[in-house]
Amino acid sequence: MIIKKKENWFKMLFEWKGSVLPQLLPRLFLLFLFSLLIVYYKSFLLEYNLHINPAIFTLFGIALAIFLGFRNNVSYDRFWEGRKLWGALLNDTRSLARQSITLLNTENDKAESQKFIQLLIAFVYALKHQLRHTNPDKDFDRLISSDLKEQLQNIHFKPIAILKELGLWVKKAKAEGRIDGFAQLAFEENLNKLSDIVGGCERIASTPIPYTYSVLLHRTVYIYCFILPFGFVETLGWITPFVIVFIAYTFVALEAIADELEEPFGLQPNDLALDTMSLMIENTLLELNGEKIEIKKSDNEYYLT
Amino acid sequence: MIIKKKENWFKMLFEWKGSVLPQLLPRLFLLFLFSLLIVYYKSFLLEYNLHINPAIFTLFGIALAIFLGFRNNVSYDRFWEGRKLWGALLNDTRSLARQSITLLNTENDKAESQKFIQLLIAFVYALKHQLRHTNPDKDFDRLISSDLKEQLQNIHFKPIAILKELGLWVKKAKAEGRIDGFAQLAFEENLNKLSDIVGGCERIASTPIPYTYSVLLHRTVYIYCFILPFGFVETLGWITPFVIVFIAYTFVALEAIADELEEPFGLQPNDLALDTMSLMIENTLLELNGEKIEIKKSDNEYYLT
Amino acid sequence: MIIKKKENWFKMLFEWKGSVLPQLLPRLFLLFLFSLLIVYYKSFLLEYNLHINPAIFTLFGIALAIFLGFRNNVSYDRFWEGRKLWGALLNDTRSLARQSITLLNTENDKAESQKFIQLLIAFVYALKHQLRHTNPDKDFDRLISSDLKEQLQNIHFKPIAILKELGLWVKKAKAEGRIDGFAQLAFEENLNKLSDIVGGCERIASTPIPYTYSVLLHRTVYIYCFILPFGFVETLGWITPFVIVFIAYTFVALEAIADELEEPFGLQPNDLALDTMSLMIENTLLELNGEKIEIKKSDNEYYLT
Amino acid sequence: MIIKKKENWFKMLFEWKGSVLPQLLPRLFLLFLFSLLIVYYKSFLLEYNLHINPAIFTLFGIALAIFLGFRNNVSYDRFWEGRKLWGALLNDTRSLARQSITLLNTENDKAESQKFIQLLIAFVYALKHQLRHTNPDKDFDRLISSDLKEQLQNIHFKPIAILKELGLWVKKAKAEGRIDGFAQLAFEENLNKLSDIVGGCERIASTPIPYTYSVLLHRTVYIYCFILPFGFVETLGWITPFVIVFIAYTFVALEAIADELEEPFGLQPNDLALDTMSLMIENTLLELNGEKIEIKKSDNEYYLT
Amino acid sequence: MIIKKKENWFKMLFEWKGSVLPQLLPRLFLLFLFSLLIVYYKSFLLEYNLHINPAIFTLFGIALAIFLGFRNNVSYDRFWEGRKLWGALLNDTRSLARQSITLLNTENDKAESQKFIQLLIAFVYALKHQLRHTNPDKDFDRLISSDLKEQLQNIHFKPIAILKELGLWVKKAKAEGRIDGFAQLAFEENLNKLSDIVGGCERIASTPIPYTYSVLLHRTVYIYCFILPFGFVETLGWITPFVIVFIAYTFVALEAIADELEEPFGLQPNDLALDTMSLMIENTLLELNGEKIEIKKSDNEYYLT
Repeated sequence: MIIKKKENWFKMLFEWKGSVLPQLLPRLFLLFLFSLLIVYYKSFLLEYNLHINPAIFTLFGIALAIFLGFRNNVSYDRFWEGRKLWGALLNDTRSLARQSITLLNTENDKAESQKFIQLLIAFVYALKHQLRHTNPDKDFDRLISSDLKEQLQNIHFKPIAILKELGLWVKKAKAEGRIDGFAQLAFEENLNKLSDIVGGCERIASTPIPYTYSVLLHRTVYIYCFILPFGFVETLGWITPFVIVFIAYTFVALEAIADELEEPFGLQPNDLALDTMSLMIENTLLELNGEKIEIKKSDNEYYLT
Repeated sequence: MIIKKKENWFKMLFEWKGSVLPQLLPRLFLLFLFSLLIVYYKSFLLEYNLHINPAIFTLFGIALAIFLGFRNNVSYDRFWEGRKLWGALLNDTRSLARQSITLLNTENDKAESQKFIQLLIAFVYALKHQLRHTNPDKDFDRLISSDLKEQLQNIHFKPIAILKELGLWVKKAKAEGRIDGFAQLAFEENLNKLSDIVGGCERIASTPIPYTYSVLLHRTVYIYCFILPFGFVETLGWITPFVIVFIAYTFVALEAIADELEEPFGLQPNDLALDTMSLMIENTLLELNGEKIEIKKSDNEYYLT
Repeated sequence: MIIKKKENWFKMLFEWKGSVLPQLLPRLFLLFLFSLLIVYYKSFLLEYNLHINPAIFTLFGIALAIFLGFRNNVSYDRFWEGRKLWGALLNDTRSLARQSITLLNTENDKAESQKFIQLLIAFVYALKHQLRHTNPDKDFDRLISSDLKEQLQNIHFKPIAILKELGLWVKKAKAEGRIDGFAQLAFEENLNKLSDIVGGCERIASTPIPYTYSVLLHRTVYIYCFILPFGFVETLGWITPFVIVFIAYTFVALEAIADELEEPFGLQPNDLALDTMSLMIENTLLELNGEKIEIKKSDNEYYLT
Repeated sequence: MIIKKKENWFKMLFEWKGSVLPQLLPRLFLLFLFSLLIVYYKSFLLEYNLHINPAIFTLFGIALAIFLGFRNNVSYDRFWEGRKLWGALLNDTRSLARQSITLLNTENDKAESQKFIQLLIAFVYALKHQLRHTNPDKDFDRLISSDLKEQLQNIHFKPIAILKELGLWVKKAKAEGRIDGFAQLAFEENLNKLSDIVGGCERIASTPIPYTYSVLLHRTVYIYCFILPFGFVETLGWITPFVIVFIAYTFVALEAIADELEEPFGLQPNDLALDTMSLMIENTLLELNGEKIEIKKSDNEYYLT
Repeated sequence: MIIKKKENWFKMLFEWKGSVLPQLLPRLFLLFLFSLLIVYYKSFLLEYNLHINPAIFTLFGIALAIFLGFRNNVSYDRFWEGRKLWGALLNDTRSLARQSITLLNTENDKAESQKFIQLLIAFVYALKHQLRHTNPDKDFDRLISSDLKEQLQNIHFKPIAILKELGLWVKKAKAEGRIDGFAQLAFEENLNKLSDIVGGCERIASTPIPYTYSVLLHRTVYIYCFILPFGFVETLGWITPFVIVFIAYTFVALEAIADELEEPFGLQPNDLALDTMSLMIENTLLELNGEKIEIKKSDNEYYLT
C-alpha cells in the first residue's frame, strides 16, 4: 500500500504513482482512436442514421450505476474485512501474549511465555504465507524449533497446525499445574478467535465475487464507453475524443480499483501491507515479552505506527 | 461455482461460459423481433400517436433502480451470509477438533478424539445433504457406525441429531473423568455455535425474498423493456432493435443473476461450492487428527486452497 | 407467506395471487379516470397554461427515490430481523434442549428433560401469541400443567414468566445435584439469549417506522402520481392514462409492499409464517427428546423443511 | 412518539398531527411569496437573462440526493440504535431480575431479590433522567432508600453509581454464601452489558452528526429551493409557486424529520417514548418478582404491549 | 469538535465557523475567475465549437455520485467507528473499575482499587497520546508512579504495556487471595476488550482509504467543476460564474468534509474530541472510586454530559 503525505489539492490532480491510470492508458488510447474515427466519418454516420439519441445513455446509466456501485462497495467491504481480520489478529495475539504472562499461577516464567509468544509470531507468518502462497521456511527458521518445522513440512493448513501447538502448550501448562481451569478457559476463548481469523481470511481469499457479475459489469462498462461517441459526435464535434476519454476514464478506473481491492491479500499496490503488519505484530509481541524493539523508519513506516 | 483465471479485459467481453447470457437468449431474441416489428410499423405508430415521450423512461428509472438495486443487494447478502455460515462451520469444527485433542486431562487419547472428529465430519455432510435435499447414506457409510446410521434413518433433522451425539460424547468424557467442567463449558460454547450455523442455513434455505417483490420487479423489468421500442423508434430508426436489446440485456441479466444467488445452497453455476467445501473441512479436520491428507488439483481447486 | 414454485418468466408477468395488485386496483382505477378527464380537457389545460414541464418530475424524483428506497430498506430490514430472531429462537431452544439432555451429571433422566423441553415449546407458542395478540390457552392446554396455566392467566408478559420457570428448573436441578455450576452457567447464557429474542420481537412489534415518514412518503407518492398526467398529456395524448397508471403502479405497489413487511409478525400474506415456524420448532425439539415426529406435506410445507 | 392506527390511503394524505408540516409552514409561505414575486417580474428576468437552464438542477440533484440520503440514513440509524439500546435495557434487566431469583443457592429469598429489582428499576429511571437532563428525585423517592438517594445527590453519573450498587449487592450475596462464583460470573456478564447500554446512550446523546454536515446540507437545500423559481418560471407560468412549494416541501420536510430523529432521547413528537418504556420495564420487572401489575390503556398504549 | 446550539433555519444559512467554506474559498475564487474568462470569450468558444452539450454532465453524474457517496459513507463510518471505540473504552474502563471494587473477596480495599483505577486512567491517556503522536509525560506524571513511567519510556506500544500492568495487578490479587478464579475470568474478558479497542483505533489511524480512491475522486470532482462552464455558458450567460461556483461548492465541500472525517483522531475542527473524552472518562472513574469530581462548564461542555 502506497501511502503518502496528502498533496495539496492542485498537485493531487496530476498524481501518477498511486493511481491506476498507467495500466488503463492503452485501452483509453484505443477508445481515443475509435472516437477520432467516428468524428472523421461523422457525416456518413448521420446520413445512415447511425447516430444514437443521447437520452438512451441515461437509461444505461441505471444499470451502470447499480453495477459499479455494487462492485465498488463489495470490493471495498472485502478489503476492509481483510483489514479487520488482521487487526483482530493483532488484538488477539496481544491478548494471548499478555495471558501467557499474567495467567500463570507461578512467578513469571519467562522461558515458557517466550515459547508461547514465538509460536504466536510463527502463527502470524504462517497465515501470511498461506494467503500469499509463498514459502514460510525462512521465517520458520528463525521462529520455531527445527523439530516443529519438519513436522509442519507436509502439513497443508500450517496456521491451524500451529494453533494446535498453542493448544498443546496450554494443555501442558495445565497438566503441570502452572495454570488452572479458569486460565485454560480464558486461553481457549482467544484460541477460538484465532481459528475464526484464519477461516475468515481463507474465506475472502477463496471466494471471489461471483464471476458472472464481473463479466456482466465489464461488458456493460466497455460497450457503454465504445458506443458513447455515436451519441455525442453530432453535438460535441472535434472535442468528442477528449470528452469521451475523460468520461470513460472515471468508469474504467472505478472498475480497475474494485478489481484490485477485491483480493486484499495480494501483492498489488492497493492491497493490504501484510509484510508490514506481520512485522508490527512480531514487534509488539516481543515488546510484551520484555524485549527491546526497534521500529525502522522505512518508506511505508506510516502504515502501522 | 465456476472460477477462472481472469482473462484480459478484451477477451472478457466475449466470455460465454460464466455468464447468464445463454439462458436469456430466447427472451432477448423475442424482444429483438418485437422491436423489428415496431420499426416496420413506425409510420403507423406515429400517425396514431402511439409514440411515447422518452422522458417517461427516466420516471420509470427511479422504481427500476430501487427494485434492481434492492433485489441485487439482498440476493448477494444471502449468498455471502451463506458463505459466512460455511466459513464459520469450518472455523468451529476446527476449534472443536482442536479441543477434542487439547482439552483432555489425560495423555492424547487418539481413539476418542478420532471418534469425535468423525462425528464432526458427518455433521458437515449431513448439513450439506439436508440443504440440498440429497441422500446422505453414502457419506454416512464411510463416516459413522452402522448403529448410528440406522438411528439417523428416521430422523428429520439429521445434523441436529449428530450435534446431540457430539454433546453425548462430551457428557461421557466428563463422566469418565477425561475432561473437567471448564472443558465442558468450552465445548458447549462451540456446540452452540454449530447449532446457530445449522439454523442460519435453514433460515436462508427456507425463507426466500417475499414473492411479491419478485413478481413486482419481474413485471416492471419486462414491461419496461417491451415498451422501450415505442419510445425510441422515432429517433433511433433501424438500429432500434440492436440498442434496445443491449439495454434490455443489462437489466434482465441483473435480475437473472440475483435470482441465482438468492438460493446459495443450490446446484446452479453461481451457487456455493458445498461439495468442495465439505471435502476441504474433512481434510483439515483429518489433518488436525494427525492423518496425512492429499489435496487434489481439480478444476475448481482454486476454490478453497 | 405464500411460497410457490417459480413460474417461467412469461407466466410470472401475469401472476395475481402473490401480488399486492388486487388491493391497489381501486386507487389505480381512480387515477385512470382522472387521467382520462385530463386528456379530455387537454386543450383547456394548455390554454390556461396548466401544463407542467416534464423536467419538474426529475426533481421530484430525487425525494421520491430517497423516500421509497429508505422505506423499502427499513421495512425489509424489519422483516428480516424478525426472521432472524425466530431463527435464533430455533437455534437457542435446540441448544437448550440438547443441554437439558447432555449436561446432566446423571444418566439420561428423560422425565426431567421432557419437562424442560415442554416448557421450551410453551415458551415459543407464548411468544407467538403475544406478538399476534391471540389467545394461547389452546396451546397451553396441551403443553403445560394446569397449575402453571392458571398461574400464567393474569400474567401480562407470559414468555418472560415461562423463561423464569426455565430458570427455576435449572435452579432445582442444581439444588438436587443433577447439574453443577458449569452447567448452570451454560444454561444461563442461553436463557439470556431467549430474553434477548423476546425483547427483540417486542421492539419490532411495538416501534413502527416513525409515523411522519409514512405520512410524508405517502403524500409524496400519491400527489406525484396525480400530477403526472398534467406533465405528459401534451406529448402522450390518448395513451396517457395507460402509461401513467403503469408508472403509478410501480410506485404505489412498492409502498404497499413496504407497508406489509413493516410489521412482520402480522397475518398478511407476506408476513412471517409464525404458525409453521412454531410447529417446526416443536417438532425438532420433540425429535431431540427422542420422539418420532411426522412432518405434514401441507401447502406451505416448502417454508421450513 | 405519536402512534395511530393506520388511516386509509386517502385520509392519510391530509394527515396533520403526526407531520412536520406545521413547523415548516412559515418557510414554505415565504418561498411561496418569493415565487409569486418572480412570476410577477418574469419579463424583467427574461430580459436580463436571469433565467436558469432547468438542466442545472439535475446537477444539483446529485449533491442533494447524497446529502439528504446520507443525513436521513444516519439520523434514522441513531434513532434505531437508541431504540435498540433501550430494548437491550429491557432484555438485560429482565435477565438480571430472573437471575436474582433463580441463581440463589437458598430457597427463594424474596426480600433480597426485591431489593435488587428495585435497584434495577431505579437504574432505568436514572438513565432516562440523565439522558433528558431532568430531575430524578421524584422517581428515586419511591424506588430507593433515602440513604442511597442522599448518596446519589452529588453524583454526576447516577446510573453508573447505581450499577456499582448492583455490583455490591452481588458481592454481599457471595460473601454471605447466597450465590457462588458461577452465579457471580453470570451476574457480571449482564452488569457489563448495562454499562455498555449507558455508554451507548451517552454516545448518541453527546455526539451529534458533525455540525459541518448539517450546515452544508441545510444551505444546499434552502438555496436550491429559492433558486428553483428562476429555473421554472418561464415554462410553468402562474402555477410556479404551487409546484415549487410542493417540491420544496418534500426536501425541507425530509431535512426536518432527520433533524428530529437525530436526537432520539429528546421530547419532540418523533423521539423515543422513554416514559412509556421506563414504565413498561418497571412493570415487567415487578411482575417477574411476583407482583400483580396493571397496564393502563392510555393513548400511546400501543407503543409497548 | 465545535458544537453549538442549533440556530434557527435562517441564520444557519450564513454559518461560517463550523463550515469548511473558509479553506475552500481560494479554489472557488479561482473557479469564479475561470468562469468569468469563459463568459468573456463565449463567442470565441461557440465559433470553434468548444461548447459542451449539457447532457454530458448527467453521464459524469453517475461516476460522481458513486464516488462522492462512497467516500462520504466510508469517511463517516470511520469517524463513527472511532467514536464507538472510545465509547467502548468508557464502558469497559467503567466495568473494570466497578469490578476492581466489587469482585474482591475482602472488604473494600480502597488502596488496591485506586491503584487499578489510576492505571486505567493512564491507559486512556496513553492511547490518546499514541493516536495523536503527542507526548504523554505530563499526564503520566500525575497518574502513575515514576518507576512505571521510567519503565514506559522506551516502550513503543505504551497502552499495551499498561494493559499488561493491569493484568499483573489481577495476577497479584489472585496470588494474594484477594480475588478467585471466577473474578480473574471476569477481569480477563474486559482486559481483552481493551486490547480490541487499542487495536481498533490503531487500525483506523494507520489504514486510510486506499490512496487511488482519493486521487480518482479528487480528479473527477475538480475536472468536472472546471469543465462545467463550457457546458452552461451558452444558456446561463453572465450569471454563469455565480451558478457554477455554488454547484462546485456543494461538491468540493462534500469532499473536504469527508477528508476531515477520514482521520477521526486528528486535531481538525470536525475530529473527535479526545481531550474532552479522556477527561470525562477520568472523571467517571474517579467518581466510581468515591472521589468527588467537578465538571467544568467549558465551551464544548456539551460534548460529553
